[in-house]
Amino acid sequence: MIDFALDDFLEATLREDLGRAGDLTTNAIVPANRTASAQIVARAACTVSGLAAAARTFVLLDPTIGITFAAHDGDTVAAGTVLATVSGSARTLLTAERTALNVLGRLCGVATATRRYVDAIAGTRATIVDTRKTTPGMRALEKAAVRHGGGKNHRFGLDDAILIKDNHVAIAGGVRAAIEAARAAAGHLVKIEVEVDTLAQLDEALAARADIILLDNFSPADLAAAVARTNGIALLEASGGVTLATVRAIAETGVDLISVGALTHSAPAADVALDIAD
Amino acid sequence: MIDFALDDFLEATLREDLGRAGDLTTNAIVPANRTASAQIVARAACTVSGLAAAARTFVLLDPTIGITFAAHDGDTVAAGTVLATVSGSARTLLTAERTALNVLGRLCGVATATRRYVDAIAGTRATIVDTRKTTPGMRALEKAAVRHGGGKNHRFGLDDAILIKDNHVAIAGGVRAAIEAARAAAGHLVKIEVEVDTLAQLDEALAARADIILLDNFSPADLAAAVARTNGIALLEASGGVTLATVRAIAETGVDLISVGALTHSAPAADVALDIAD
Amino acid sequence: MIDFALDDFLEATLREDLGRAGDLTTNAIVPANRTASAQIVARAACTVSGLAAAARTFVLLDPTIGITFAAHDGDTVAAGTVLATVSGSARTLLTAERTALNVLGRLCGVATATRRYVDAIAGTRATIVDTRKTTPGMRALEKAAVRHGGGKNHRFGLDDAILIKDNHVAIAGGVRAAIEAARAAAGHLVKIEVEVDTLAQLDEALAARADIILLDNFSPADLAAAVARTNGIALLEASGGVTLATVRAIAETGVDLISVGALTHSAPAADVALDIAD
Amino acid sequence: MIDFALDDFLEATLREDLGRAGDLTTNAIVPANRTASAQIVARAACTVSGLAAAARTFVLLDPTIGITFAAHDGDTVAAGTVLATVSGSARTLLTAERTALNVLGRLCGVATATRRYVDAIAGTRATIVDTRKTTPGMRALEKAAVRHGGGKNHRFGLDDAILIKDNHVAIAGGVRAAIEAARAAAGHLVKIEVEVDTLAQLDEALAARADIILLDNFSPADLAAAVARTNGIALLEASGGVTLATVRAIAETGVDLISVGALTHSAPAADVALDIAD
Amino acid sequence: MIDFALDDFLEATLREDLGRAGDLTTNAIVPANRTASAQIVARAACTVSGLAAAARTFVLLDPTIGITFAAHDGDTVAAGTVLATVSGSARTLLTAERTALNVLGRLCGVATATRRYVDAIAGTRATIVDTRKTTPGMRALEKAAVRHGGGKNHRFGLDDAILIKDNHVAIAGGVRAAIEAARAAAGHLVKIEVEVDTLAQLDEALAARADIILLDNFSPADLAAAVARTNGIALLEASGGVTLATVRAIAETGVDLISVGALTHSAPAADVALDIAD
Amino acid sequence: MIDFALDDFLEATLREDLGRAGDLTTNAIVPANRTASAQIVARAACTVSGLAAAARTFVLLDPTIGITFAAHDGDTVAAGTVLATVSGSARTLLTAERTALNVLGRLCGVATATRRYVDAIAGTRATIVDTRKTTPGMRALEKAAVRHGGGKNHRFGLDDAILIKDNHVAIAGGVRAAIEAARAAAGHLVKIEVEVDTLAQLDEALAARADIILLDNFSPADLAAAVARTNGIALLEASGGVTLATVRAIAETGVDLISVGALTHSAPAADVALDIAD
Repeated sequence: MIDFALDDFLEATLREDLGRAGDLTTNAIVPANRTASAQIVARAACTVSGLAAAARTFVLLDPTIGITFAAHDGDTVAAGTVLATVSGSARTLLTAERTALNVLGRLCGVATATRRYVDAIAGTRATIVDTRKTTPGMRALEKAAVRHGGGKNHRFGLDDAILIKDNHVAIAGGVRAAIEAARAAAGHLVKIEVEVDTLAQLDEALAARADIILLDNFSPADLAAAVARTNGIALLEASGGVTLATVRAIAETGVDLISVGALTHSAPAADVALDIAD
Repeated sequence: MIDFALDDFLEATLREDLGRAGDLTTNAIVPANRTASAQIVARAACTVSGLAAAARTFVLLDPTIGITFAAHDGDTVAAGTVLATVSGSARTLLTAERTALNVLGRLCGVATATRRYVDAIAGTRATIVDTRKTTPGMRALEKAAVRHGGGKNHRFGLDDAILIKDNHVAIAGGVRAAIEAARAAAGHLVKIEVEVDTLAQLDEALAARADIILLDNFSPADLAAAVARTNGIALLEASGGVTLATVRAIAETGVDLISVGALTHSAPAADVALDIAD
Repeated sequence: MIDFALDDFLEATLREDLGRAGDLTTNAIVPANRTASAQIVARAACTVSGLAAAARTFVLLDPTIGITFAAHDGDTVAAGTVLATVSGSARTLLTAERTALNVLGRLCGVATATRRYVDAIAGTRATIVDTRKTTPGMRALEKAAVRHGGGKNHRFGLDDAILIKDNHVAIAGGVRAAIEAARAAAGHLVKIEVEVDTLAQLDEALAARADIILLDNFSPADLAAAVARTNGIALLEASGGVTLATVRAIAETGVDLISVGALTHSAPAADVALDIAD
Repeated sequence: MIDFALDDFLEATLREDLGRAGDLTTNAIVPANRTASAQIVARAACTVSGLAAAARTFVLLDPTIGITFAAHDGDTVAAGTVLATVSGSARTLLTAERTALNVLGRLCGVATATRRYVDAIAGTRATIVDTRKTTPGMRALEKAAVRHGGGKNHRFGLDDAILIKDNHVAIAGGVRAAIEAARAAAGHLVKIEVEVDTLAQLDEALAARADIILLDNFSPADLAAAVARTNGIALLEASGGVTLATVRAIAETGVDLISVGALTHSAPAADVALDIAD
Repeated sequence: MIDFALDDFLEATLREDLGRAGDLTTNAIVPANRTASAQIVARAACTVSGLAAAARTFVLLDPTIGITFAAHDGDTVAAGTVLATVSGSARTLLTAERTALNVLGRLCGVATATRRYVDAIAGTRATIVDTRKTTPGMRALEKAAVRHGGGKNHRFGLDDAILIKDNHVAIAGGVRAAIEAARAAAGHLVKIEVEVDTLAQLDEALAARADIILLDNFSPADLAAAVARTNGIALLEASGGVTLATVRAIAETGVDLISVGALTHSAPAADVALDIAD
Repeated sequence: MIDFALDDFLEATLREDLGRAGDLTTNAIVPANRTASAQIVARAACTVSGLAAAARTFVLLDPTIGITFAAHDGDTVAAGTVLATVSGSARTLLTAERTALNVLGRLCGVATATRRYVDAIAGTRATIVDTRKTTPGMRALEKAAVRHGGGKNHRFGLDDAILIKDNHVAIAGGVRAAIEAARAAAGHLVKIEVEVDTLAQLDEALAARADIILLDNFSPADLAAAVARTNGIALLEASGGVTLATVRAIAETGVDLISVGALTHSAPAADVALDIAD
């Protein structure tokens, strides 16, 4: 099945690099009929994501390129692992190289960061989830990368779930009023989550029967209190400045979900490369 | 002057968040005629970039939004600094908030990382330059962020200059052959840069009168030797695994340019926020 | 706030009518500087929807057009009611007339049909909801028209909720297996609805804790049995060949939701017109 | 030959349903390598149109899908008739089902409605034609559906023929002046039609040598008088509130053309379905 | 009224020149707040066309630019005539200059060439018309330029009239068969033109009641014979290798239309310039 | 490798001709399953360019069309030469014919004009280069045509090199100031060219170390003086009103480059045709 949005994204990214006149260097130096094969390699250990997208980059530019996968999205691999082999026109391989690697490096970076958080809370009942703090234009890809790293996804955008934040609460005149306004407008397939800053607001949210309650910048002690008070009636999400150093303590409070913006807004790119075998 | 490409990018980014049905939460809770004003704030010290773009996000979504700038792209600011004030429809402010901040946070992150590298080599003759390892779709914005951080730009894409890399050299059968093929094809306004791995290749590149020579993963000693041997006949660019820890020693070898991929592929996002005043 | 998707839709619709060469008739006959005003009128009683969209059609084509609304989306009006007045360039009024009326007539048609179903079940606890059987390209507009007619919306598309249909159940090997597979994949903000054909399947769906259960082509007696058996643990949606003649009996069984495809796939257009006053 | 506009329309319609994240249900439940075949079936008798478009929907989403046609656009079929078989990835079949059926159901609806009008005037010399009261974005498809139902097409848009309506006549200062202004501007391949409200205006239009004259809301008696008076010098089109109940009497007056807006703006969708054989 | 297609064309043309990074020269040298005014001047005598489009180029790039027209499309002007004044941001004037002039120069070239042909046949009953041999992407603009030069337009494309050419005749098995097939398919607002190579084919076309007959590469004597034989029953169009040297003799044969491909495919650009007054 | 920009251009050009309803004539007359083959022929001697693009036009519209090339871009051919054979659906051949020929005729025209200029200066050291006075939307194609005709390319747009023109010099306050401002802003891969009107300005440009100096409307004597004074330190480009009559004298002054706007803005189309063999 073709992923129209992925193809749009990759083609736009190729065009961004190709400009008006294409790859001046390759076209000047590499004969049009020269073929080659190349390996996509992880230079450092990482969790893989975006491998199918990176391969698709070559094929979109040139449908005659052949791809053989040696790893798959979701795999965690050691430094030096060959992820895939691409073969065909040498011009295509050189022209698409940077675009494909930029996509792959970023997505492996997100998956790898996610995997670290997921591993850090192993054995607890919490789930690592992402946020909407994604790279512009790459939300679907980065949310897939979070899944490849073992996390789960928060809402995809403003239109697929209700998340009442502090400013909404302030304008509505309270947690209960905000939830009621949201429920009156929402269809029957839309869940309602509300952000609270205090245990008192938590009680108000529970009384108003929110589906999920986001506990914003709660201390571990307050998180634990919230878990006790909620008693499974709603899902609880811890959020706010979570780091690898703090995530396990948060998870051990018994919250259901821990959302981490840094998975997508600050993960360093993974070190991936294309080695042309010739 | 309208920046068509910027508007395309911002509108696509807004659409990515809005989906089919728009901001369910805000539309359910915030009255259509409610107005508010909000401050865009740097929560941590940073070098600013993308402020005009972030402000444009609100105006694109709603031309009646008013903007007052309190800082400008290129400024380095302390934690807590107000960067701009946006005012108008409360719905617009809440709906565009995340998109604007995602753009701003990433670009301030790039500018801030660049500023650190530039400061680290202060007093040397070298210039920090970026690479094509940019975020897909954001190349022009990230290259501007590098300038805002005090760096300069390498080529924008495959079509505005010639950069002969190792694979091109291999296919051409040598540095000289590659440069000659490139020169034969290039127009009179196109410069030619060539990547070399050894001092011997450097000599070949000098003999073939390359405009710029990229010294790939040279040790500081070899960089210094290259500078001496080149004697100003061509520009020299050091590249490969440059970090904040190593950049000053590289600069002190006398190279003209130091390219750093991490400026754009691994800079953590800056911590920026929107505080609604009302 | 600009609705990008609405503007795209209206501009595409105008272009579809304008073709390459524009309105040959009007440009040949009406002087460029001639002005006029015109009333958008409901020739027959209807529930209004799409009035803002119809007005936007004129403004998109010519930002100097003035609009005064005399009714609003959601109003139910008598035959002969003036809905809005548009004034400005006579050429614009004539050129945009058909496009604006095509949009308005269809959406008033949907709202009017919905209103009839909603009125037919007045006093029961059921809610009329739409389906994905919408006009291609007009889903958001038609779903708004359903709301203007007093109904509520089912999911907007394949990606904002899970609806397990008979074919999914068959492939999964049963209702329970299907629900479990869905739950394992879904994020915490995604609700799960499942279609069942029998009361036995209903029991299975209840045991697997589906959020909503769609009772496909159940007789009123079976619907009532389903309501009794469910006892409020999940929402129940009646679906399948619902008509104005049958909807009240269905509603009186106590189901929560009744979905009606005909609201959007077969509602006749409302009779709306543009009367140029000159 | 590829129909670019059709592909644009179908892809946009698929994207409208797929959203950002695609078919959550199918992707969660149906294995990626599962194959199936399915029959597109007419649940009620209808005249077929849009079958090629519906089949193209599957192929656009997934070029590996196979199609076998059992009927063709223009056929009139009995309830239960299999129209086509689609086979391939089970995910694709389920994901594209609703989009394909929405397109097919609407177009069969238009063709079926047209066929009824055409049959109702069998034996007369009149031709049933459509109007510009089409579904936004579907004009070419709906005009093809009218042809499949046995009708013919009026102009496709504002730019491929001149149709002088009452407002144009009023601004021009009369039928003759309007026709003369139109003729002065029109190229030699553009026909001129004019709408008249009275027999006196008809005479004026005949004197000014209009190619076609639209008789707006004329009684059958006046239509017959118009036919007599025109004597074949121009084509005559009857228009305005034509229904299945009135169309034959209109046709028997001897007019050449009868235009019916309801063919496209109010035809109920045909009942078509996809039966997965597994 | 906005001309969507014109704006698309001009914006695409500006983007073609601006590339990824915009006007490097102007941005480096001209202060952002510098203003200027400039005159659009015809350096050589010409018939003006595209002036509104050229002015729109500046406004699209920068809505704050002011325009004052000193001439209008359709005027024939002497060398040195100021056509318009544009004023505002100096950067905008310099950045948009080449795009605006490229559009204007080409369209004035078409209008000027047309004017020469029209003048050459003054006093005859023939009309100069264009062809579909237009610049890709500029058909509507070039057809307007032909009108500005005093000519009239042939069909706009393949879909707004029927023109049966020699290959169609060959496939249909004769002029009559081709005309009959076309008439059976065409709606009542579509005219039918047929190309003939001989007087015998002309007779066949007349017998089949073609609306217009294109006489391809007829000698003046044969054209005159055709005019005599046709006697006003159909319009006659002379076509094929018409030049300024031959056009008057052709017109004097009494044909109705003379089509000239060179109006659009080979007209040299007019010499227009932008003089910045500062 | 797919050329995305070429495909965009060709598809848009086909759509411009096809309109909403496609090729009325061909669809009415030519059976859908009829096949044919046709030769693309140069009716007059020319230098070929755009042949691959013209062939691609057919394939884009219909991937089953077969192409056999008998000539290649860059060839200079005699009148009557067959350039390529296209075979497949007769409908496709007839529908795409005009679009393909419009593209081919224009590009062969540019290549042929370029070839004449290049031949006229054979034996001198000068190179013929193009300008930005290209057909809107066709810059990359026309610049390729210039190369096919033996010329070389000036910059592709405003963003890939710096060209300081008289207005920039005036605003900067002199040639030196302008060059210095440009150099301060430019990256290390951007060359700087400056336009001068006098020998005094030439000296200033040489002192400021411009890479290339454009001598605007210099007499041959002044060009020779400029060459002597420059002595190889910078490249010299002669520009301004160059014609076939004057170009050799200009070349013999010893300048490096001669830019000719007429190559692209005023080259008459080459006479190319499609002969259907049937």
